[in-house]
Amino acid sequence: MDATTRIERALATAMAHAGAPGCPPRLAAAVRHALFPPGSRLRPRLCLAVAAACGEDRPGVTDAAAAAVELLHCASLVHDDLPCFDDAPTRRGKPSVHRAFGEPLAVLAGDALIVLAFETLARGAVEAPQRLPALLLTIGRSVGMPCGIAAGQAWESEPDAVLADYQRAKTGALFAGATMAGAAAAGADPLPWRRLGEALGEAYQVVDDLRDLTAAAEEVGKPTGRDAVLGRPNAAVQLGIDGAVRRLDELVAGAVDSIPSCPGAAELRAMVRVQAQRFLPKELVQRAA
Amino acid sequence: MDATTRIERALATAMAHAGAPGCPPRLAAAVRHALFPPGSRLRPRLCLAVAAACGEDRPGVTDAAAAAVELLHCASLVHDDLPCFDDAPTRRGKPSVHRAFGEPLAVLAGDALIVLAFETLARGAVEAPQRLPALLLTIGRSVGMPCGIAAGQAWESEPDAVLADYQRAKTGALFAGATMAGAAAAGADPLPWRRLGEALGEAYQVVDDLRDLTAAAEEVGKPTGRDAVLGRPNAAVQLGIDGAVRRLDELVAGAVDSIPSCPGAAELRAMVRVQAQRFLPKELVQRAA
Repeated sequence: MDATTRIERALATAMAHAGAPGCPPRLAAAVRHALFPPGSRLRPRLCLAVAAACGEDRPGVTDAAAAAVELLHCASLVHDDLPCFDDAPTRRGKPSVHRAFGEPLAVLAGDALIVLAFETLARGAVEAPQRLPALLLTIGRSVGMPCGIAAGQAWESEPDAVLADYQRAKTGALFAGATMAGAAAAGADPLPWRRLGEALGEAYQVVDDLRDLTAAAEEVGKPTGRDAVLGRPNAAVQLGIDGAVRRLDELVAGAVDSIPSCPGAAELRAMVRVQAQRFLPKELVQRAA
Repeated sequence: MDATTRIERALATAMAHAGAPGCPPRLAAAVRHALFPPGSRLRPRLCLAVAAACGEDRPGVTDAAAAAVELLHCASLVHDDLPCFDDAPTRRGKPSVHRAFGEPLAVLAGDALIVLAFETLARGAVEAPQRLPALLLTIGRSVGMPCGIAAGQAWESEPDAVLADYQRAKTGALFAGATMAGAAAAGADPLPWRRLGEALGEAYQVVDDLRDLTAAAEEVGKPTGRDAVLGRPNAAVQLGIDGAVRRLDELVAGAVDSIPSCPGAAELRAMVRVQAQRFLPKELVQRAA
């Protein structure tokens, strides 16, 4: 079964549990709006790819880990879009959750998605319960405190934010959670996989900064030029566009080099190189070629 | 070790993990503000009491379950107090989290508390990992979708809310989570313990409604008379004060009767009766006596 089918099926199963009879219909609709149709599903793909490279033996556990990572990513998007943060009117080419369903349901949908992620992990781990504690702690660390997504977002409220801590936590943490959870789902040691996730997370942040600066809003599916409006650091502004593209090449090369020795290392290296190119805005690919 | 010491120690340990070096200081302060000084700690006390009644054999697992339940309760208070819900200026006699730290940190503190609850469960379950899936699913169900706290709060955004579903999910669900998690932490079947939690949750809601109507704000530590302002259902308004006190007596009697056969059933029955009296406003205890 291909990665897309596995991920969408795992998310549909999680949504079926969450939206079971008795659920307030508008909350179920808000959560469905946040999850579907799919965004890039980059993090769960990465999770599946690392599990495969490690010699995956429990696909149900991997699917649950990948779904949990994506549920948490979607939760963070719903809350980041709230009026007290970015006040984003659109996301993935349609109204953000609070614009479509109101602020109360957006707060609750984000909360419910976080809870659903951990429930999904527990349900999926039924076939290998001994892997659940490491998986839960790996994924929990990537989204909570002291240095997961919530902490990354909180650096925006600190008078003396450390820029590297901010970027590492806000974007890198869940990418590292995805690679490490992929390894843990396959019964491998997650720690050697942190560097790959962090490097790809930083690379993704550079791509996002380039898109914010250069792409059209329709192409990205959310407003562009927001970093300047919100006074947020942007690598493409700091380094210039050519400098940012060079930095991206370095990060991808570092990511590829960091891949630990494992049964599927060669395929994973190739996949990382291909995926990294796919996410650059089209005109920058031509420019970088 | 008494219940208060166990609960506060487990929460302090969780806070130490969350606020470890690298954590944004204001986020750590906001989470600490939400957790300390203690409120009634009613739910974790109930969790410990049920585990003891079931013949607790793994106190570390029980402590983690109790702490997780309280962390989730505090998360729900932080988010319920937000401007888009109750816009509560005070909580537990001091400023609510968003009044003290701003709305962005209140959203993030709530998110981080949810994540911390599940991490705490996983850390505590190290000594009995086979109990983790049932514990996680029991507690997850009590806070998420389709019928946990988030769902309960979401009924306020539904045009056709079912009042019983609303109250059962908003208050009863986490009380049921507390009793069922206490049983699961002790290796017992959690299901027979649901009724006790639901009945106590409903009883607590009646007490809360009575306090909202009759007590002074200083005594309760949060504004009173809010149900009328926010147009929310209130049992003491619907039934009258004497009717509500009678309903409370029935609920407590039903709770006591529901306690399943177990090694510590007699002590637990006595404790439930004593605790139920403690939480009535003083003038109502005299009136009911």
